[in-house]
Amino acid sequence: MPGVPGGDALSNPRSERVRAVRALAGRSARLRSGTFLAEGPQAVREAVLEAARLRAGGGADAGAALVRCVYATDDGASRHRDVIGAALAAGVPVRRCTEEVLAAMADTLTPQGLLAVCALVSRPLPDALSPAPALVAVLSQVRDPGNAGTVLRAADAAGAGAVVLTRGSVDVHNPKCVRSTAGSLFHLGVVEDADPAAAVAALRAAGLVVLAADGGDPAALDLDDLLDDASAGRGPLAGPAAWVFGNEAHGLAEDERALADAVVRVPLHGRAESLNLATAAAVCLYASARGQRRRGAATAAAAGSSA
Amino acid sequence: MPGVPGGDALSNPRSERVRAVRALAGRSARLRSGTFLAEGPQAVREAVLEAARLRAGGGADAGAALVRCVYATDDGASRHRDVIGAALAAGVPVRRCTEEVLAAMADTLTPQGLLAVCALVSRPLPDALSPAPALVAVLSQVRDPGNAGTVLRAADAAGAGAVVLTRGSVDVHNPKCVRSTAGSLFHLGVVEDADPAAAVAALRAAGLVVLAADGGDPAALDLDDLLDDASAGRGPLAGPAAWVFGNEAHGLAEDERALADAVVRVPLHGRAESLNLATAAAVCLYASARGQRRRGAATAAAAGSSA
Repeated sequence: MPGVPGGDALSNPRSERVRAVRALAGRSARLRSGTFLAEGPQAVREAVLEAARLRAGGGADAGAALVRCVYATDDGASRHRDVIGAALAAGVPVRRCTEEVLAAMADTLTPQGLLAVCALVSRPLPDALSPAPALVAVLSQVRDPGNAGTVLRAADAAGAGAVVLTRGSVDVHNPKCVRSTAGSLFHLGVVEDADPAAAVAALRAAGLVVLAADGGDPAALDLDDLLDDASAGRGPLAGPAAWVFGNEAHGLAEDERALADAVVRVPLHGRAESLNLATAAAVCLYASARGQRRRGAATAAAAGSSA
Repeated sequence: MPGVPGGDALSNPRSERVRAVRALAGRSARLRSGTFLAEGPQAVREAVLEAARLRAGGGADAGAALVRCVYATDDGASRHRDVIGAALAAGVPVRRCTEEVLAAMADTLTPQGLLAVCALVSRPLPDALSPAPALVAVLSQVRDPGNAGTVLRAADAAGAGAVVLTRGSVDVHNPKCVRSTAGSLFHLGVVEDADPAAAVAALRAAGLVVLAADGGDPAALDLDDLLDDASAGRGPLAGPAAWVFGNEAHGLAEDERALADAVVRVPLHGRAESLNLATAAAVCLYASARGQRRRGAATAAAAGSSA
């Protein structure tokens, strides 16, 4: 069976190794080992593809430095040969294991025969801002792992280069958060435990305007008006921007709002009092993505008409 | 204590009444009784405000026809006097109960001292489309109650008038779905168990263009291009639209896509393969909301310049 590794399958669900992998569902084991668990074909595929990218740019060991080991049942390996092939090509060790062993390692009920132990992805703020991305999401005191993961996924889709979580936010390596990112955790510069004031200063120094999203503030700028400005090539959505999103229940604290260059609200056309955090974030981040591209289009059109 | 009802508090968590309310967490009891449970101050407030609206339009009994009873602990009632006052003004019975009774009734761990038994909100499709709303969300085979509820909330925020769930979709009165709507369940015309072809035909007959959202289709129209068209006052985002969203895992079936007037994708600027259902829905619904308002602005501007 090409692409499916041979060798003895790990078969003892009570072994030291299996228990060490299982323990990664907990924060203390993740911090101690510097690793976390990516479960299921989508997350493992994105991890392995990122490992291949790192290896292409950074030498033979760079892939395995990100993905320490892929564990696969025979069934998982034969259904996802592309993933196993990419892992082997990236220099990532692949270990066969029985269904029982995989179930004992996993946090999910159905990891579909594949999981990977990966190095923690968070990095220092200056790394994530070099080169400066045109779009960044900042999560301040966001507590729900599903919300945070869904924002990471939406940020990736909207073309953001980094996501910054301030001190007191959820651990992005929490299994539920990892699942909600659907692999996007491996695509973004992720910063954890950031100090809000220091993060805002660094973002501004990197040339980004800092926008606080706050649906509850009637004095906030209306996102639709800013999109109008951006189609004319001006305003905060026409250029690089960092969006700051607050806690699910309490929004942004006054001192966090005060740090921003502007406070912006998504217009509420119906009778809903607010949007869910991740849906609001998606609307804001896509507004910036659109505004930045419209400015590009406006600039191109102006260049064309003056030529 | 004004606004806080008197009378004996219900104190037996094993009583017939308490067990009947608790049973509403299950679908069969909801269908049998025609009622469901709204838990916590936000859901109960929106239920009661809708009851007041119905009473203002439809006579003394119309409020209590929607909200059959509000149950409140003394603490819940004194912290949310506005809700209790609005319930009493809408002709909705309010019953005191002990913390133990409320906990025994509730599906949530923390209903914060308030819950309401309400009549099921779903209605026949012709009712929900009369008068025809300018924006509708259709959920096809959506299975996760949290996803469905979050889409309802986003649809409400974007100004949609109705949400249609096709046969095989989640029950919107499921407690987790109700919570995720954050009260928006009471703001929208909700249709359940719809036949996809019949729903599309009715939406089209009501003057709406039917757009299937499908991120995985490279031949689909790009949402950004449609927004450009809409700023020029043309295309499907410039007028009334129904958006059809598919199952979380499998998207839309081929026959469902074929029913639509156009297939549209949200552009993926980064490396994410797709968006989460609710975030994609929010971006699409807000695009329609913006396109419809831009057309309004364009029309107003044209009228102004020709005057």
